[in-house]
Amino acid sequence: MAHHGLADRLQGTDQNVWVEFGNLVVKEKALNLGQGFPDFHAPEYVKKALAEAVMSDNPFLNQYTRGYGHPRLVKALADLYSPLMNHPIDPMNEILISVGAYGGLFCAVQGLINPGDEVIIIEPFFDCYEPMVRVAGGVPVFVPLRRIEKPEDAERASFQSSEFCLDYEELSSKFSHKTKAIFFNNPNNPLGKVYSMEECEMIADLCKKYNTIVFSDEVYEWLIYDDKKHIKIANLPGMYDQTLTFSSAGKAFSVTGWKLGWTIGPPHLVKACSVLHQNCSYTCPTPLQEAIAMAVEREIPKLGSGCKDCYLLKLARELQPKRDFLAKCLQEVGMKPIIPDGGYFMIADYSGLMNASPEINLGDSNEPKDYQFVKWMIANKVFLIR
Amino acid sequence: MAHHGLADRLQGTDQNVWVEFGNLVVKEKALNLGQGFPDFHAPEYVKKALAEAVMSDNPFLNQYTRGYGHPRLVKALADLYSPLMNHPIDPMNEILISVGAYGGLFCAVQGLINPGDEVIIIEPFFDCYEPMVRVAGGVPVFVPLRRIEKPEDAERASFQSSEFCLDYEELSSKFSHKTKAIFFNNPNNPLGKVYSMEECEMIADLCKKYNTIVFSDEVYEWLIYDDKKHIKIANLPGMYDQTLTFSSAGKAFSVTGWKLGWTIGPPHLVKACSVLHQNCSYTCPTPLQEAIAMAVEREIPKLGSGCKDCYLLKLARELQPKRDFLAKCLQEVGMKPIIPDGGYFMIADYSGLMNASPEINLGDSNEPKDYQFVKWMIANKVFLIR
Ligand SMILES: Cc1ncc(COP(=O)(O)O)c(C=O)c1O
Ligand SMILES: Cc1ncc(COP(=O)(O)O)c(C=O)c1O
Repeated sequence: MAHHGLADRLQGTDQNVWVEFGNLVVKEKALNLGQGFPDFHAPEYVKKALAEAVMSDNPFLNQYTRGYGHPRLVKALADLYSPLMNHPIDPMNEILISVGAYGGLFCAVQGLINPGDEVIIIEPFFDCYEPMVRVAGGVPVFVPLRRIEKPEDAERASFQSSEFCLDYEELSSKFSHKTKAIFFNNPNNPLGKVYSMEECEMIADLCKKYNTIVFSDEVYEWLIYDDKKHIKIANLPGMYDQTLTFSSAGKAFSVTGWKLGWTIGPPHLVKACSVLHQNCSYTCPTPLQEAIAMAVEREIPKLGSGCKDCYLLKLARELQPKRDFLAKCLQEVGMKPIIPDGGYFMIADYSGLMNASPEINLGDSNEPKDYQFVKWMIANKVFLIR
Repeated sequence: MAHHGLADRLQGTDQNVWVEFGNLVVKEKALNLGQGFPDFHAPEYVKKALAEAVMSDNPFLNQYTRGYGHPRLVKALADLYSPLMNHPIDPMNEILISVGAYGGLFCAVQGLINPGDEVIIIEPFFDCYEPMVRVAGGVPVFVPLRRIEKPEDAERASFQSSEFCLDYEELSSKFSHKTKAIFFNNPNNPLGKVYSMEECEMIADLCKKYNTIVFSDEVYEWLIYDDKKHIKIANLPGMYDQTLTFSSAGKAFSVTGWKLGWTIGPPHLVKACSVLHQNCSYTCPTPLQEAIAMAVEREIPKLGSGCKDCYLLKLARELQPKRDFLAKCLQEVGMKPIIPDGGYFMIADYSGLMNASPEINLGDSNEPKDYQFVKWMIANKVFLIR
C-alpha cells in the first residue's frame, strides 16, 4: 500500500541547513562553526547545581513539575527580569518555560498565528523563523538590513554590524493590518547587530500603529561587546503589552545542550503560548529547571552589584578577544569580516579571497554561492588560518 | 487596541484537566494521585549517570547534540529494541528522540495528520490525544472499551481491567478510508488494560485493510503485573511498516521529570515526525540523553539474562504490592477497583460509596460526575483510607 507522507503543513520545510551541514561536517571531520555553542566548559557552579538537583534528597526534583514552569525557576526569573523590564512580572502568568528559546518561539507562532496572517522577518535571520511561520500557515514577509555601499569600501579591511540598518520607507511598506507579528532578533543572529534606540522606536511605533505583536528573540541579550547597550523593546512605552521576549538558559549560561528557555510577556500573549505548550510537551525537565533557578538566584545580587564574578556579565568580556582574534584571522586570508556588536557569530565577505585564489573552484550547482563556498572549504579541508 | 487571542487551531483546547486539578491540589494541600509519577527515588545509578555526564571532562556533553537524537542514545536504543521488535532498527533513521513520549506523540500527529483526517481514539484515553488531533485539524473518532454487565456484578468486590474489551463490530464500523491513524495505548492509561494477542490482531487487520497508521503509546511497556505479557503491535506480521511506537525514559526509569522519550518506526514515518521536531524544539537536552544512554547500556545485558538487578523488570515487581494495597483500601471504603494489569493507574467505581454516604453532596454543576466527586473529596479533605 502507498506510504503516508509528510502532512501538508510540512511541505517544503524538510530541508534544514543544520542537518545538511551537520552531516557534511561529520563525514569530512571538519570543525562546525555554524551552530552556536561554546567549546569551553560551562561554569562549574551551574553544572554542580544540576548534579545537586539530581542527587538531591528530594525525590520530586526528578519528577514532573508545574507544566508552565517550575515554581522556583519562574520566581527567580521574575526577580531577575522585573527590574530589567521596569515591570513587576507575575511569575505564574507572565512567564512560560519552554524547550529552549526555540520551543518558546514555536509555541508563540502556533499559539498566535492563523493561516494567512503576515509575519515580518528581518533578513538575515535565524533560519527557523521561516519554516515556523509556514507550518502555521502564516505568510512570511521579508525585509533586509542594508548597508549603503560607498566608494571607499574597497579600501576597508572590515565592516561594522551597526552599518547594516533597516530603511524606514522599506520597513513601513511591509506593514499593514494583516501584519500579525514581527520577528525582532536583538542582538541579531547572524550579523551580530545590536539595535539602537532609534531603530527600536521605529519598529515599536509601527507595531503600535498596526497592532502587531513583537516576537523579540533576545537569546544573546548578555553577549554585548564594546560597551554597546542592549535595549529591550518591551521596555519602550506601551510595548510590554504587545511583546513576547524570548531568552535562553543555554546561551546565558553556556549550556546550549540543556535546551531550556523562557518567554516573558503580558498574560494574554503568554496564555496563547501556554495552551500550545501544554499540547506539545506539557512540561520541561525538572532538574534542569531547578539548576537554572539556582544559577539565576546566584546571579541576581552579583548583577545588581556589577560584581566581577557575575557570569552573565563575564561571558561577553571573555568572548570579545576571541571575536577580535577571529576577525584578524579572516582579514589575514583576504576576507572582510563584519564585526559583531553582540552574539556568537561573525559574517565575512569572502569575495576578496575568491578573487585572489584561482584554485577555489565552486563548480556550477544552483545552490546559493555561500553554500557552495563553505562546501568547497569543507571538502578541501583548507586551514586558512596561518 | 484589541488584544490578540489564541490562534484558531487552539480554540477549545485551553482547558486542561491536569492544570485545573493541579491548581486545586496546591490550593487545598491535597495529594495528587492523578499525574503519573513515583513518590520514591529514581534509581541511584540513573541519577549518578546524569551527574557524571554534567560534570564530565567532555564539555560537549552540556552543548547541543544531533537534532534527531544523541548518537550514543539512539545506538543504545537500537541495541535494546532490535531484539524486542525482531527487526534491525537503524538508529539514524528509525528512531527520533523527543521531549518525552508526549513530545513524540505531538510530532507524529502534526507530522502526519492533515485537516479532515480521521483518527480513532479508544476510550478511556490519555487526555492529550484529543486536543492533539484537534489542533492538527484532524477529526477524533471515539470507540469505547466496554465491559458487559452481569447480574452477579453486584456481588463482586472488584473488576479486572481485562474485562474491558473492544467490540469488533463497533470498532470496525469506525474505520474507513478516511482513517489516517489510531491511538493504541498499551498498557492503557487509565484502565491499566494490557491487550491480548487476539485484540492486537483485530486492530492490526483493520489497520492493514484501511492503510491506517498505529500510534502505539507504550510508555508503560515495562510496568506489567501478574506475568501478563505485553505485545508490541509493531511486531505483528506487516505492521512494522505502519506503526510508530512511543516510549518514555521517564516511565521506564522512574524519572518522569526528565521528559525524554523516543519514537521508533519505519524511516518514512519517523521522517515525518523529525521534520516537525526540527521545527518545534530542534534537539533534546544532551546530558539527559547521555545519562539515559548509559542507563540503557547497563540494562541490556541484565535484561538478556533476566537478572534480578534489571531495573526495567524490577519496577513492576515493586509496584505490584502497592497496587494490591491500594485496591484493598478502596474496597474497604466501599469502592470497586478495576485491577490494572499494567501501568501506574487504578480506576474505581465509587457508586457504592456514594449510595452508602448521604453526607457526600456533589451539588448540581454541569460537570461530569467523576469531576464533581473528586472535587468533593479534595474540598472535604477526607481521608478514606482507614
Ligand atoms: C537567534 C536564536 N534564537 C533562538 C535560538 C535557540 O535557542 P535554544 O537553544 O534556547 O532553543 C538560537 C540558537 O542558536 C538563536 O541563535
Ligand atoms: C499514556 C501516556 N502517554 C504518554 C505520557 C507522557 O510521557 P512523557 O512524560 O514521557 O512525555 C504519559 C504520562 O503520563 C502517559 O500516561
